[in-house]
Amino acid sequence: MTIRALVWGENIHERVNTVVAGLYPDGMHTTIASALNADGGISASTATLQEAEHGLTEARLAETDVLLWWGHRDHGAVADEIVERVARRVYEGMGLIVLHSGHFSKIFKRLMGTPCALKWREAGERERIWTVNPGHPIASGIPEHFVIDNEEMYGEHFSVPEPLETVFISWFEGGEVFRSGMTWRRGAGNIFYFRPGHETYPTYHHPMVMKVITNGVKWAHNPMPALTSVHDAPNVPVEKALEPIVQKGPTLHEAGEEGFK
Amino acid sequence: MTIRALVWGENIHERVNTVVAGLYPDGMHTTIASALNADGGISASTATLQEAEHGLTEARLAETDVLLWWGHRDHGAVADEIVERVARRVYEGMGLIVLHSGHFSKIFKRLMGTPCALKWREAGERERIWTVNPGHPIASGIPEHFVIDNEEMYGEHFSVPEPLETVFISWFEGGEVFRSGMTWRRGAGNIFYFRPGHETYPTYHHPMVMKVITNGVKWAHNPMPALTSVHDAPNVPVEKALEPIVQKGPTLHEAGEEGFK
Amino acid sequence: MTIRALVWGENIHERVNTVVAGLYPDGMHTTIASALNADGGISASTATLQEAEHGLTEARLAETDVLLWWGHRDHGAVADEIVERVARRVYEGMGLIVLHSGHFSKIFKRLMGTPCALKWREAGERERIWTVNPGHPIASGIPEHFVIDNEEMYGEHFSVPEPLETVFISWFEGGEVFRSGMTWRRGAGNIFYFRPGHETYPTYHHPMVMKVITNGVKWAHNPMPALTSVHDAPNVPVEKALEPIVQKGPTLHEAGEEGFK
Amino acid sequence: MTIRALVWGENIHERVNTVVAGLYPDGMHTTIASALNADGGISASTATLQEAEHGLTEARLAETDVLLWWGHRDHGAVADEIVERVARRVYEGMGLIVLHSGHFSKIFKRLMGTPCALKWREAGERERIWTVNPGHPIASGIPEHFVIDNEEMYGEHFSVPEPLETVFISWFEGGEVFRSGMTWRRGAGNIFYFRPGHETYPTYHHPMVMKVITNGVKWAHNPMPALTSVHDAPNVPVEKALEPIVQKGPTLHEAGEEGFK
Repeated sequence: MTIRALVWGENIHERVNTVVAGLYPDGMHTTIASALNADGGISASTATLQEAEHGLTEARLAETDVLLWWGHRDHGAVADEIVERVARRVYEGMGLIVLHSGHFSKIFKRLMGTPCALKWREAGERERIWTVNPGHPIASGIPEHFVIDNEEMYGEHFSVPEPLETVFISWFEGGEVFRSGMTWRRGAGNIFYFRPGHETYPTYHHPMVMKVITNGVKWAHNPMPALTSVHDAPNVPVEKALEPIVQKGPTLHEAGEEGFK
Repeated sequence: MTIRALVWGENIHERVNTVVAGLYPDGMHTTIASALNADGGISASTATLQEAEHGLTEARLAETDVLLWWGHRDHGAVADEIVERVARRVYEGMGLIVLHSGHFSKIFKRLMGTPCALKWREAGERERIWTVNPGHPIASGIPEHFVIDNEEMYGEHFSVPEPLETVFISWFEGGEVFRSGMTWRRGAGNIFYFRPGHETYPTYHHPMVMKVITNGVKWAHNPMPALTSVHDAPNVPVEKALEPIVQKGPTLHEAGEEGFK
Repeated sequence: MTIRALVWGENIHERVNTVVAGLYPDGMHTTIASALNADGGISASTATLQEAEHGLTEARLAETDVLLWWGHRDHGAVADEIVERVARRVYEGMGLIVLHSGHFSKIFKRLMGTPCALKWREAGERERIWTVNPGHPIASGIPEHFVIDNEEMYGEHFSVPEPLETVFISWFEGGEVFRSGMTWRRGAGNIFYFRPGHETYPTYHHPMVMKVITNGVKWAHNPMPALTSVHDAPNVPVEKALEPIVQKGPTLHEAGEEGFK
Repeated sequence: MTIRALVWGENIHERVNTVVAGLYPDGMHTTIASALNADGGISASTATLQEAEHGLTEARLAETDVLLWWGHRDHGAVADEIVERVARRVYEGMGLIVLHSGHFSKIFKRLMGTPCALKWREAGERERIWTVNPGHPIASGIPEHFVIDNEEMYGEHFSVPEPLETVFISWFEGGEVFRSGMTWRRGAGNIFYFRPGHETYPTYHHPMVMKVITNGVKWAHNPMPALTSVHDAPNVPVEKALEPIVQKGPTLHEAGEEGFK
């Protein structure tokens, strides 16, 4: 079964910054999508902030198995309504891969429920990524550690909820560490945060980085039908109880009435 | 050290429903606060939806160690600004106990990042609460199981994030089960959800229910100073790096510039 | 890729108890293996306590992707050496599905590190299994709940470590609850405990039970090469450090010496 | 309530290695116990490998709230029977702090159920410990990071189960990272592993190291009565079921018979 991935890019710095444009002439989203398409099992397309509804229409999301998110310069420009729409699809089972500066995206903060803040330094320093969970599917084919020669530093404390599992931890030349790969589930949706990817460096041309992201897409893919019931809070009437019971005591609601929300 | 607890009550059904008013003539929040005050180590006061800023001013929250939340009829009436204010205090270390129908409160959904939906039935049926984590502080002095004769049923699937720990699971007469006691940490704030407490039954007069809630307040209390740094995303300049490094490669930001948010 | 499953059965009650023999004339292990083989993607064979090395030779385990374990009458008869051998393969990535009374097997207690005790009652009562994590792969195709008409009761407290995720919780006619489906990872090995399966009832002829177990095998399967490095504690000499460092201070070990174990 | 801590030391290198003897003339266990006793709320004593029953008699353990464990040179000399005795007390609620090379102790491997292996290098290099969970009680009063000038390197992959929470992560001068502070619960017992403490360096004279260990003792302390029921697997007879049920179907056990173990 081919996994339908959608790479969302903010697509600003690629157009206004010559360094970024030089590294990613067609946009970072396009580079990432191309690498995913090189894997036989994934069919990746792209969407950007500038498209109508940011390219994230109901129809588009309905046919997306895993969404990848890269944003940095203008998180605030993403419409709240679209954020809610994406969140609903995650609850129903769409996977979500949040990349680098996407830690401050509305959708990631929405799903984590926390500030998602961290320390940072733009010094082009060496980052060494260690695999701390080598049996995790996202670590498949990834060595014990690999190096990115020039990256932005992200340092702890990274204010996210304790993850289901920590997969990667980064060592930085300047003395910091960072939990660079972590997983969560929200509703039926699998979420993976992966740290690398500052736009002034060729990070998304690094084979190991793209191998991790490709693994992430496969891991995040939930092949089950959309869990649309996740949004419901159904009343179960007394007469339909699984075990025979009788009504006891007073009630707030009339029979068949909806609950308060 | 006395723990400063604040019991927030929506305070609607106590005023408009004669059954509820009969059970809780001074409001559920007052009954809960009284029970907490009966424990030597807690000083509990109350706040309600109807007060200015819902009784949750900056000053009030600053002197609150643990906030308890009961709402049902009108979650939507809580101002978004106050919800954000409470969330910030949780990140800084204020504990939060969410009770019963508070599962659909704005603040709980905000901190969980999920729908927090469930099944329900108002039949006054028997609920038996099982302790599945007897070594957890919240289970201190709680027996293997205890019974509430008449309660509303809440049934799975309860769409919350996988908790740090599951402490209690309920058995219902009508055939359902529910994870009735679960814990999470968000930032420096400890969060405990506890299921019982439908307003048409005398649940908050049940000694075991109040023992669990009292334990919850003690567990959720974080005596450390407020972790105000949790909101920051500080830049660490190259010249202040912990290990000596030199600037390499291009940068987006001018020296000293703020990051994008 | 076909998953190679090995169903291990204690194979005692099937031979000495006429009720069990009537339900499982070829042994429970054979019934389970047949159901797994009915799924296109799994190739299941069997092994029993009575075989040489309990049918769990090094060679056999080396070609096993997922091991299923059912034992009850004589856990103590499993040789400690074989238990260690199985544990090592789990660390390397072999999946393990522990069924019902296997909660007290040496291998489960070895991998959990806890007593794995529980309450029980052999009354043929009704068990209703609730899906509390509908997005988990093991819940694929499983309804919100399903019923087993006659089962042994297992009740909390079940003394296992907090799982990675809780997938199923059981409701029992007699008033108990039980966390019936839980997952852990140990080394590179995925572990799933699934409660149903008392030998005097036709539980392993129940289609939903076998669907869960089939899902469990697929989830537990780790397609990566065996993580044999999991057993090692390698010294990294100063001259091979990833960053240039110089020896400072005194040492216990001579250069090249093994560590203490 | 004063917490009764017991610091267990292997007490070998302190006697046979002049460097270690110079740093810890009365043994590392004594240094650690003295630092704990400097905190008003802890009463710490010591026990060593060389004492009868390694100083860990039933009586001694019964009056111990939190056990600290340092061993390295001769893990194998600890009697299996004593290991089981300690494990039982942990299940009942005794806290356990495992220090440094104690990662390979029998008791830690017993409770984790995994190899607990890691990489290492004895180069006296710089270790910087980062707090990744600043709201955790063990991080109380601990800064964002602190440095140990000379330490042994421990590197990932550290083959332990995914913890309840990760509290500290170490950065090493030579390029590695390590999850240096992690928590688990086993039965009613809280377990904290803390990495620093190679015997040829003055690590246990470092105030921040001892502050973390002191916090660890307080966090691990479970004031509840010993949970002796954790070892039991009681039968609940039909006639004592919480809900009225009738016997259905065949049974293996005679009424009142013990379960198989």
